[in-house]
Amino acid sequence: MRVPPYVRALAAGVVNPTPRIEAVRQFGATALVDGDNGHGVVIGQIATDRAVDLAHQFGVGIVAVRNSNHTGMLATHVLRAANRNMIGYFTSNGPAIMAPHGGREPRMGNAPFAYAVPRRTGDPIVLDMASSQVARGKVRMHADRGDPIPEGWAIDERGVPTRDAAAAMRGSMVPMAGYKGYGIAFVTEILASVLPGARLSVEMPRAFLEAGSSMLDSWGSGHLAMAINVEAFADPGEFTTEVDRLVTSMKETPLAEGTDAILVPGEPEWFTRRHRLRDGIPLNATVLSQLDAFAEEIGIEPI
Amino acid sequence: MRVPPYVRALAAGVVNPTPRIEAVRQFGATALVDGDNGHGVVIGQIATDRAVDLAHQFGVGIVAVRNSNHTGMLATHVLRAANRNMIGYFTSNGPAIMAPHGGREPRMGNAPFAYAVPRRTGDPIVLDMASSQVARGKVRMHADRGDPIPEGWAIDERGVPTRDAAAAMRGSMVPMAGYKGYGIAFVTEILASVLPGARLSVEMPRAFLEAGSSMLDSWGSGHLAMAINVEAFADPGEFTTEVDRLVTSMKETPLAEGTDAILVPGEPEWFTRRHRLRDGIPLNATVLSQLDAFAEEIGIEPI
Repeated sequence: MRVPPYVRALAAGVVNPTPRIEAVRQFGATALVDGDNGHGVVIGQIATDRAVDLAHQFGVGIVAVRNSNHTGMLATHVLRAANRNMIGYFTSNGPAIMAPHGGREPRMGNAPFAYAVPRRTGDPIVLDMASSQVARGKVRMHADRGDPIPEGWAIDERGVPTRDAAAAMRGSMVPMAGYKGYGIAFVTEILASVLPGARLSVEMPRAFLEAGSSMLDSWGSGHLAMAINVEAFADPGEFTTEVDRLVTSMKETPLAEGTDAILVPGEPEWFTRRHRLRDGIPLNATVLSQLDAFAEEIGIEPI
Repeated sequence: MRVPPYVRALAAGVVNPTPRIEAVRQFGATALVDGDNGHGVVIGQIATDRAVDLAHQFGVGIVAVRNSNHTGMLATHVLRAANRNMIGYFTSNGPAIMAPHGGREPRMGNAPFAYAVPRRTGDPIVLDMASSQVARGKVRMHADRGDPIPEGWAIDERGVPTRDAAAAMRGSMVPMAGYKGYGIAFVTEILASVLPGARLSVEMPRAFLEAGSSMLDSWGSGHLAMAINVEAFADPGEFTTEVDRLVTSMKETPLAEGTDAILVPGEPEWFTRRHRLRDGIPLNATVLSQLDAFAEEIGIEPI
């Protein structure tokens, strides 16, 4: 889904392929980084690494970023902290697709944020989520198939909850858990947009969100990366042992009727990753033909 | 609701009325504080003030706390940061009342967390919320009145969603937005309990939660207080102006059908506060007679 718009944006110079990603402000355990309109997947990792370096020195590090673009999955960034035995946090803003609680027009991004936490045994905890009830991509898939959507996913143009996927695409996504998710999204926008001095979600171009589109304008988006150095607070081995004990306490909870297992954040995705490393990544015919067509567009051989 | 258990706990020495609240570990922009089993309402404010001091020096400050007790409303703590032109964050753990997603037994607290953000005009943004769908106190009020509860608030002892408030009191609260709220609660417990080396929620005594009860044992709870110094990233005046612009963008969103206004986090509570400062705090006959009875119990004159 992301390969064509990423490559087109770089090829057209809408996203800067050779950015100078530099701190424009530094103070103690913090930095403000200008992404020079580079690729967000790269900028986010650089920002996280810098936060990790600051956290080595000060116990915690925060790096705010402006003038960036789409960051890909946030797990990419926070895992760089967890792999160095720190707790990672990352948030980013994005184009408006979600109405504030009580509104009927998109004014907020889906307000994604992520945490990663190292464990003693097993893969790190990774919570990588959006503050919307569901991802807009899910509604689009229903609309493409002509299927209805479940109750509570979205509202139509009048702001009324709808099960009509096409009406939802013309309307707006809604925050998870109503005013609670709206509150989280509101604060997340302050951290990701206002603090770094980036564009507000409502001011960002939306073309990137439409299927098959080019990215006609850069995002000017903002991020906030934080690393918390576990060593500053606890013996790292004791900390990760205690994280494992919390995991066990969750997994050993008696099951509700109709449930097979209790999972911890990131567990399903680690499971999928192991399978795909072994068996490859399944691609359906539509995606494959889109990638083949895109390979032709840019003049490379399809694999 | 809180006055009798707070006072009883202090009078009985279950909570230490003269604690030595001290840092047992300090590193850069962080500290680990032992609350010496003092009152959480006091400890949380001391921890926040220390985080603010660190953020003055380093741009960000994090203070983790162990060996504490119930903190009252989290807004009390984060507002101390916002009043000094910083972004405040605070979280605390508490006794298990909520099942993990897919479970049927309480193993998590309601995982409350709060943010406060200064504005240029008007009262600070305050997001002070729990990760449960609703507060357990709301279910208890329905149970006391013999009323049913709305769909989605809680599960019964078998883990099945129930509208029977009494069955819900024997069962468990559930995370907001299903697995999303569970993920937030899980990470919050790591920050509030595991990082400071406090008790896990599932190990904390629950007596305090029951109406009219004493607090028979101290909580051993943990908190995490963070302050982000706006000045490290932006001109404070520009930052608060931009927060106001975000507020305006939300409030000017076209309204959904059936909605009167779009609010921002904390706005209803600031409104209530102004009214109560002017008109006093309404107390119903039940609460008043409970307070009168408690005054008699401890040998003071009811007002």
